[in-house]
Amino acid sequence: MAKHRVGLWLIGACGSVGSTAALGLSAVARGATAPIGMVTATPAFDRLNLDSLDKFVVGGHDIRRGRFLETVLELHARSNIFTTAQIDIARPDLEDWAHNVRPGTVLASGQSITELAELPEVRQVHTPLDAIARIQADLKEFQKGNSLDQVVVVNVASTEPPFIAGDEHSTLAKLKPLLERTTPVIPSSSIYAYAAIDLGLPYVNFTPSVGSCLPAIHELARLKKVPLAGKDGKTGETLMKAVLAPMFAARNLRVMSWVGHNILGGGDGRTLASPDNKSSKVQTKDAIVRDILGYKPQTHVSIEYIESLDDWKTAWDHLHFEGFLGTKMMLQFTWQGCDSILAAPLMLDLARLTLFAQRRGEAGPLPHLASFFKSPIGVNEHDFFKQYMMLGEYVSKASLTS
Amino acid sequence: MAKHRVGLWLIGACGSVGSTAALGLSAVARGATAPIGMVTATPAFDRLNLDSLDKFVVGGHDIRRGRFLETVLELHARSNIFTTAQIDIARPDLEDWAHNVRPGTVLASGQSITELAELPEVRQVHTPLDAIARIQADLKEFQKGNSLDQVVVVNVASTEPPFIAGDEHSTLAKLKPLLERTTPVIPSSSIYAYAAIDLGLPYVNFTPSVGSCLPAIHELARLKKVPLAGKDGKTGETLMKAVLAPMFAARNLRVMSWVGHNILGGGDGRTLASPDNKSSKVQTKDAIVRDILGYKPQTHVSIEYIESLDDWKTAWDHLHFEGFLGTKMMLQFTWQGCDSILAAPLMLDLARLTLFAQRRGEAGPLPHLASFFKSPIGVNEHDFFKQYMMLGEYVSKASLTS
Amino acid sequence: MAKHRVGLWLIGACGSVGSTAALGLSAVARGATAPIGMVTATPAFDRLNLDSLDKFVVGGHDIRRGRFLETVLELHARSNIFTTAQIDIARPDLEDWAHNVRPGTVLASGQSITELAELPEVRQVHTPLDAIARIQADLKEFQKGNSLDQVVVVNVASTEPPFIAGDEHSTLAKLKPLLERTTPVIPSSSIYAYAAIDLGLPYVNFTPSVGSCLPAIHELARLKKVPLAGKDGKTGETLMKAVLAPMFAARNLRVMSWVGHNILGGGDGRTLASPDNKSSKVQTKDAIVRDILGYKPQTHVSIEYIESLDDWKTAWDHLHFEGFLGTKMMLQFTWQGCDSILAAPLMLDLARLTLFAQRRGEAGPLPHLASFFKSPIGVNEHDFFKQYMMLGEYVSKASLTS
Amino acid sequence: MAKHRVGLWLIGACGSVGSTAALGLSAVARGATAPIGMVTATPAFDRLNLDSLDKFVVGGHDIRRGRFLETVLELHARSNIFTTAQIDIARPDLEDWAHNVRPGTVLASGQSITELAELPEVRQVHTPLDAIARIQADLKEFQKGNSLDQVVVVNVASTEPPFIAGDEHSTLAKLKPLLERTTPVIPSSSIYAYAAIDLGLPYVNFTPSVGSCLPAIHELARLKKVPLAGKDGKTGETLMKAVLAPMFAARNLRVMSWVGHNILGGGDGRTLASPDNKSSKVQTKDAIVRDILGYKPQTHVSIEYIESLDDWKTAWDHLHFEGFLGTKMMLQFTWQGCDSILAAPLMLDLARLTLFAQRRGEAGPLPHLASFFKSPIGVNEHDFFKQYMMLGEYVSKASLTS
Repeated sequence: MAKHRVGLWLIGACGSVGSTAALGLSAVARGATAPIGMVTATPAFDRLNLDSLDKFVVGGHDIRRGRFLETVLELHARSNIFTTAQIDIARPDLEDWAHNVRPGTVLASGQSITELAELPEVRQVHTPLDAIARIQADLKEFQKGNSLDQVVVVNVASTEPPFIAGDEHSTLAKLKPLLERTTPVIPSSSIYAYAAIDLGLPYVNFTPSVGSCLPAIHELARLKKVPLAGKDGKTGETLMKAVLAPMFAARNLRVMSWVGHNILGGGDGRTLASPDNKSSKVQTKDAIVRDILGYKPQTHVSIEYIESLDDWKTAWDHLHFEGFLGTKMMLQFTWQGCDSILAAPLMLDLARLTLFAQRRGEAGPLPHLASFFKSPIGVNEHDFFKQYMMLGEYVSKASLTS
Repeated sequence: MAKHRVGLWLIGACGSVGSTAALGLSAVARGATAPIGMVTATPAFDRLNLDSLDKFVVGGHDIRRGRFLETVLELHARSNIFTTAQIDIARPDLEDWAHNVRPGTVLASGQSITELAELPEVRQVHTPLDAIARIQADLKEFQKGNSLDQVVVVNVASTEPPFIAGDEHSTLAKLKPLLERTTPVIPSSSIYAYAAIDLGLPYVNFTPSVGSCLPAIHELARLKKVPLAGKDGKTGETLMKAVLAPMFAARNLRVMSWVGHNILGGGDGRTLASPDNKSSKVQTKDAIVRDILGYKPQTHVSIEYIESLDDWKTAWDHLHFEGFLGTKMMLQFTWQGCDSILAAPLMLDLARLTLFAQRRGEAGPLPHLASFFKSPIGVNEHDFFKQYMMLGEYVSKASLTS
Repeated sequence: MAKHRVGLWLIGACGSVGSTAALGLSAVARGATAPIGMVTATPAFDRLNLDSLDKFVVGGHDIRRGRFLETVLELHARSNIFTTAQIDIARPDLEDWAHNVRPGTVLASGQSITELAELPEVRQVHTPLDAIARIQADLKEFQKGNSLDQVVVVNVASTEPPFIAGDEHSTLAKLKPLLERTTPVIPSSSIYAYAAIDLGLPYVNFTPSVGSCLPAIHELARLKKVPLAGKDGKTGETLMKAVLAPMFAARNLRVMSWVGHNILGGGDGRTLASPDNKSSKVQTKDAIVRDILGYKPQTHVSIEYIESLDDWKTAWDHLHFEGFLGTKMMLQFTWQGCDSILAAPLMLDLARLTLFAQRRGEAGPLPHLASFFKSPIGVNEHDFFKQYMMLGEYVSKASLTS
Repeated sequence: MAKHRVGLWLIGACGSVGSTAALGLSAVARGATAPIGMVTATPAFDRLNLDSLDKFVVGGHDIRRGRFLETVLELHARSNIFTTAQIDIARPDLEDWAHNVRPGTVLASGQSITELAELPEVRQVHTPLDAIARIQADLKEFQKGNSLDQVVVVNVASTEPPFIAGDEHSTLAKLKPLLERTTPVIPSSSIYAYAAIDLGLPYVNFTPSVGSCLPAIHELARLKKVPLAGKDGKTGETLMKAVLAPMFAARNLRVMSWVGHNILGGGDGRTLASPDNKSSKVQTKDAIVRDILGYKPQTHVSIEYIESLDDWKTAWDHLHFEGFLGTKMMLQFTWQGCDSILAAPLMLDLARLTLFAQRRGEAGPLPHLASFFKSPIGVNEHDFFKQYMMLGEYVSKASLTS
């Protein structure tokens, strides 16, 4: 195994989350910082044969100019994260990996994402099939050029507007011929997913965009024996919801209303300021409480872009609940976290766990990864602790067999 | 089973929690309100043969003058809880049950509790054995006079100062002869516990006082085949700790400091304003975080008596935690709850579950009740969801066999 | 002066604020409660010859069925405010005053208010002039029937959608002929204002609706020598803004963003749930910070209807500010208040102060009342303490002369 | 005036506040950052002939080893404040000014401060008079060596334990002979104050220590015609109290309880962790609310040292207030600020304003500086806006005459 090397291919590579992950991967691998925030760095995972972080090479697609190092320096200056020492130690890796970044595609990404595109190449393809071909060429070059045993593709690009699947997405047979037309039948996130899966590469969707979540693409994953993980990383307010809602259920306290106001800056915030893109996010954030409680309290979720916060995010939640003898009580919380810092280690966890799953021959949605996501695929469980127990059981089983 | 009748004997009967429980018991039994806040009212417990609330008769000991109804009216006026309709429907029961209240004992309760005593009888005994005898006479009269099949004794009295157990409490053989001396070898809460257990009655300690938690008394419980539950009901801030700490552990986020400030009024608040009594409470509140995380972050817990809050309690907690790349982030919460309203339904749950356990022949500490307590006896698990799972497993097993 | 009697005429009489004011007026006058929350009850006002509360008779217009007492009982049951003793002592007054309530008008109130109308009479008029005539008949009957020396008209009705004034509202001469047409040239709130002012009655606008705020109506007020006060009572979050923004200005701390999220239930909340009506409110709430600071930080204000809160309102504000050496810091606050309880005493203050002003011969907008309002008329000052000082100076001057 | 140069002499020079002030002074003077947070940088002060920041030379006393630059770098690394660019530009000044730092005295500072002392010289004096002589020698050398027209002495050292003044401090005649004895008749902070004032240098006490606040020293100040400012800079929670309490008073809302919990790390936090030193701070923080409201609500103030916060400070305040008809409502706020960042610019303001006052011939306590302090000397006014108005009036008057 000593020579085993793996690739981490990021869609939206040079954004905040991608760049933070690249920096962290290097800084942890080089011993400059402890892997705090990585679930797979806890002792429970020691007995799994996961890829250590120094095995990873990073590459990816992006639609903007920009390199890992530049994004990292900008985050450092504006959001007050990372130390100079961490950046210095990771600098050679970040500069190396920058050569692995290729122009992405904005085909059918919606207007606010398309406006972000700075590279002329991103607009040059005209059919999904052309886009897939170009993406696959990039992936193959990356794998071959770096002599990688495995490559995992992770979507950390900006959230797309909501997308309604139709009959044409129900089977691979129906979808395939439509990929040749200029009318885009699937959004960008699904084009990337299709390209990766078709090549046999595990695919992780850390965003609320559609990605692999179409029956036709799931069919492809089963066909190609590719493990899938997604969607929408659960990093802050929604993690709190998944943790607190079970408490109210267990104690038979009736939640009457749950209001969540999110304010955030940074690149993610700017994209979410567009109502279309925001609505994708709000939908996944809002369903969890109802699913866990088994009834529908009044809920309200807002997300607002506040420039001065940069990459920081503050969520204020107000829960109004009824207790014994009809008494109304309140819980409020304020979560002040840095989005990229919370997301990046989980993304690395998912990369390690899906590469591991592929080696074990697992394919399709991986239900044991539910605790990482707001909208877990392949399983309908939102209670964080039940989800986490599923992961624990998987680890126990996989430890025995590996 | 139709004629099965059970007794709920409250130590500190006419305090806020005891009176709220009595009101709620009656109001739920008479259909005036839904059993919100009672864990045993959730569907999972339907298949257990628990005593329905209309089977209960209430009695108890108290050291102050005062009756259930008076306490209820005072809580209604000052703390803005209960409706006039609820009070009206429960009034006959509350007046009936008031006849079952007997003067308690303050032997070795510490100064701030002794000062509360208004009834001359509470000071008339001079040895623990005398006190035990008088308590047992009261309990027997209650059981016989009301033709009760079973009686459960629940401690909801004011918190005593901390008590250090010694060698004399290590076995029943060592303890017994000392009960005859005038120097009080055990505090009041343990005198009540001894009396109840010696009579074969299940004992629940909802407070942080010692109660049954002495090896000699545990020995007595095994001898008399009596189930025990305790100690210190987990109702608010500590419940939140037991729920949130596992989240940080699961996500490998390092809690650097956890500060909890509690302000509360009411009778409980007044007693806790005494430094001695407060320290008992702070100790149990503080250990949970360390036990769940597996390391010791800096913690600070304060409890302050704020008169204007009456029976309401506000906890502000500030968590400072480290994430990926050493980034410091924050979570704050404010819990605004009514103490008696949160405690009373759990107390009724515990009464039902210990009576049920006794019928099944269970004896000694009941580990499956850990989720109800800050310092669960008989098990060292503080993670709320693991505790709750233990209860679920017990319910599954007990459903099959009952 | 012993026989001096005054009338308080409420537009939207039987809503939460109107009914709370009626209850409080009676309860204070009858000595059942202290006038806490009334600015004019502080010693500074002792030397002004204000009408004591036992001089007031209440009447008003409403578009819904409902009486003061019913609204009061509903608020008591659902929002947990008022005591039974307060309600009992005020009951005779509330029942008496109910006879003084007349059907209002919904002419040009916008859809969501019109839908609330339950009384057939409210839709019977077809021109503003007809509506004015009917309103004036009601006012005259009230004044004469109760032998009142003065009557003040206070608008506490639901907020109307925004209204854009045009050239036709610029002078009385242009406006007057248009009042005879069926196309409504002014909204309901202005119809009431016109009616009152034309009769020589002081007019207070406690809402963000237009009311008297049209040049033509101001002209009428000067003509009729009528004092005006308004608009939009400053009771909670906006009061906090008017108090905190001057602190940041005085300390040269640069506010980068100020986010305010408001959640509220009750009747006011329900009306504001309509986007049109909400936008009137958000506008007045948002301008204050910019006006005080002298520059425009990013601001965001939301108002959401949360049914479970009933008449309670919670505002969470997040201020992000820059200090020395570019350091970013934060202030958050949560205001948990009861809307009607905060508004009612201020409304009584305004009634007393405008009646007093009329006796002193003051006419037109009263700038010394700015501290009561979100959008004070007749003065451009939003700093609460400067506004309050203006009131103090007025009191000093008026004390000397009266 | 072009050649006018002034000295800023800091007691506790190399602590967080002193070092931040030195950094900021240099960075603003060299144009690297705007003077945000400095009150005297607002336009109102343009017409006063204040010393521009490039006129200042910094020196001071300290009892620990350590230099401005080292403290600055440590604050940067641990508390995430200052930018590398700011540090780089100020580096030459910080290194220069380090040569002006002299060993201080710990005579009668209390145990927890004495333990901090690292320099042998600080323990070498044995009577207050010796200490005063050494301090004055340092000050004269500083003034002469740098050709300074004026020098202001500012106390930013750690808070001393409370000190009770006696008859021996009532007049200069009584105090003077006692300064020669080895029993320390005055604490260190007063020794410094005496030394400065006796030399004719303006003295600013930014801490709650006694400093110049003894009748005998005030007598000396009048004698020597020295302006005094103090005490205890009002930077965060107490500033909020001075701003919010007037609002409640103005609105006749009755504050029932005001609880303030402060958590902070850093050097200041460590010293305050000692109960003695903490009590000085809590006293000054607690009195303000009562003084402004005119009655005494229940108050509770706590300060706890939380290491992970470094130089950051979080205050959570909970206000419980009664409104109309006895309704209880709540205001909570969380202030998250950086102590040194808030304090340093105010300290520079005070240095400028006292030097200016000396040039105008003002002597003794300067009441117009009340808005800067928790316990203003020479005036009993705690309402921030009234204090700020006093400053405004002074500026107007001084502008006309200068």
